[in-house]
Amino acid sequence: METLAAALTRTRATIEASLDAMLTPPGEPSALDHALRHAVMGGGKRVRPSLTLLCAEACGGETGPESDALRAAVAIELLHCYTLVHDDLPAMDNDTERRGQPSVWAKFGEDLAILVGDRLQAMAFGELSECRRAAALLGPLVAAATLVVDGQVADLATAKRPPETWDADTLYGIYAFKTAALIRAACQLGAIAADAPTPIQQALADYGREVGLAFQLVDDLLDADQAVEGGEGLNALRVLGAEEVRRRAEAHTAAALAALDALPDGAPILRAFAQSLLTRLT
Amino acid sequence: METLAAALTRTRATIEASLDAMLTPPGEPSALDHALRHAVMGGGKRVRPSLTLLCAEACGGETGPESDALRAAVAIELLHCYTLVHDDLPAMDNDTERRGQPSVWAKFGEDLAILVGDRLQAMAFGELSECRRAAALLGPLVAAATLVVDGQVADLATAKRPPETWDADTLYGIYAFKTAALIRAACQLGAIAADAPTPIQQALADYGREVGLAFQLVDDLLDADQAVEGGEGLNALRVLGAEEVRRRAEAHTAAALAALDALPDGAPILRAFAQSLLTRLT
Repeated sequence: METLAAALTRTRATIEASLDAMLTPPGEPSALDHALRHAVMGGGKRVRPSLTLLCAEACGGETGPESDALRAAVAIELLHCYTLVHDDLPAMDNDTERRGQPSVWAKFGEDLAILVGDRLQAMAFGELSECRRAAALLGPLVAAATLVVDGQVADLATAKRPPETWDADTLYGIYAFKTAALIRAACQLGAIAADAPTPIQQALADYGREVGLAFQLVDDLLDADQAVEGGEGLNALRVLGAEEVRRRAEAHTAAALAALDALPDGAPILRAFAQSLLTRLT
Repeated sequence: METLAAALTRTRATIEASLDAMLTPPGEPSALDHALRHAVMGGGKRVRPSLTLLCAEACGGETGPESDALRAAVAIELLHCYTLVHDDLPAMDNDTERRGQPSVWAKFGEDLAILVGDRLQAMAFGELSECRRAAALLGPLVAAATLVVDGQVADLATAKRPPETWDADTLYGIYAFKTAALIRAACQLGAIAADAPTPIQQALADYGREVGLAFQLVDDLLDADQAVEGGEGLNALRVLGAEEVRRRAEAHTAAALAALDALPDGAPILRAFAQSLLTRLT
């Protein structure tokens, strides 16, 4: 059987090839083409779209070129990239770098960065318009696109409030929207693209949500290990303490694994993926 | 028979009511709710979504509550509003006012204005996700969402080039994308929502494109009449001269009217609408 590492390498390569083809214009690239490429081809791990493909495969679905699953995976990644481009803007997080490269606005200007984000969101929905199951896939992508914005709004509002008012509800309100909603949609779209029955679609949506929460909590724990004195902004450690964050990360992972029981063979690769999140802590 | 003025008043009221309901949250409005409402309910003429409804009616389609035509009309207006919110940003046109009110960023901050635009685009696609003909409607909305960004990119690039390099191609490249693409989509979506046969969909798309170009050229002529020494940025007058702009506005109107010949009864209201654009000049 294929290992998790091999599966992630394979799905990542498929997605990179698809994104690369889509962002290679037929003629001389324009400034917008360069900026779109910079925004998308910056070397992400492609975890979200890989989950779309792995969920589709777990349901016995087709994930080859021009499949609904691959198009949905690309849509999820384009949506994710657009949020990163806009989050980096000076009026938002004011980040001049991302993954060791200048952020889109730092390299191409704020005006073009705003438009690149706008265009990537349109392109995400454009991928769905090419799908055989476009109507069924549209709702979950809309929900994710709406909730990531709501999460970012909540994040900005929280940052303006005194840290002593931050509590577990504040944290989950943001994490559930900003991170978990997109990962939930990634998994759900994979199931829909594979034409899975509704209970399986629901189980994989639940799996995605729990994996998303575990992923974010583990990220906070790893950040704290690396930072000299912990993060300055909102993070789980600051609100809940390390022990409670670890306990919750384990609980969300367990919930993710439980959701997989609905699948006929228990979806070993998806099971291994959920477990790998906690392994990062060891 | 209903007059054009009565038809526009009626369709505008329908659209306002739909937008108002959608932007009235069940509980206490959040800052985001206030900002979304400010962005959308600022008193536009609702020309684009009215055209969606009038085109659907011209094809004998349903335009009542929960109809695909009304949802598509609302989607077009949400898309239009998002582009205005982002165009006004300091990094773009840096406009502090719109229709006599503070622009969204001037009132709610740049960060929230970026997010409001992002959310309105997601909401536009969300309207389609509720449609019976979602899959058929999605493509044209994606095309419009993509082209309006390309038009804005071309506009920004042109503004940075010396005015003596501006020519008719530059102008049409921007007008066709920024203005005509959205009006074209508005008309085309009305036809699709009404389940019109493909040749009629195409005829109304052509009508929308020509009306969009005439609309923009007439706007430039009116602006010049009002301005003391003409516009500073790119506009048709500066590139083509008043006489040629008027000639082209008439030619695009004639092309719009010719497209309507494909409709069984010649679509008298749509015909009157196209003609009304030139009447603004008299």
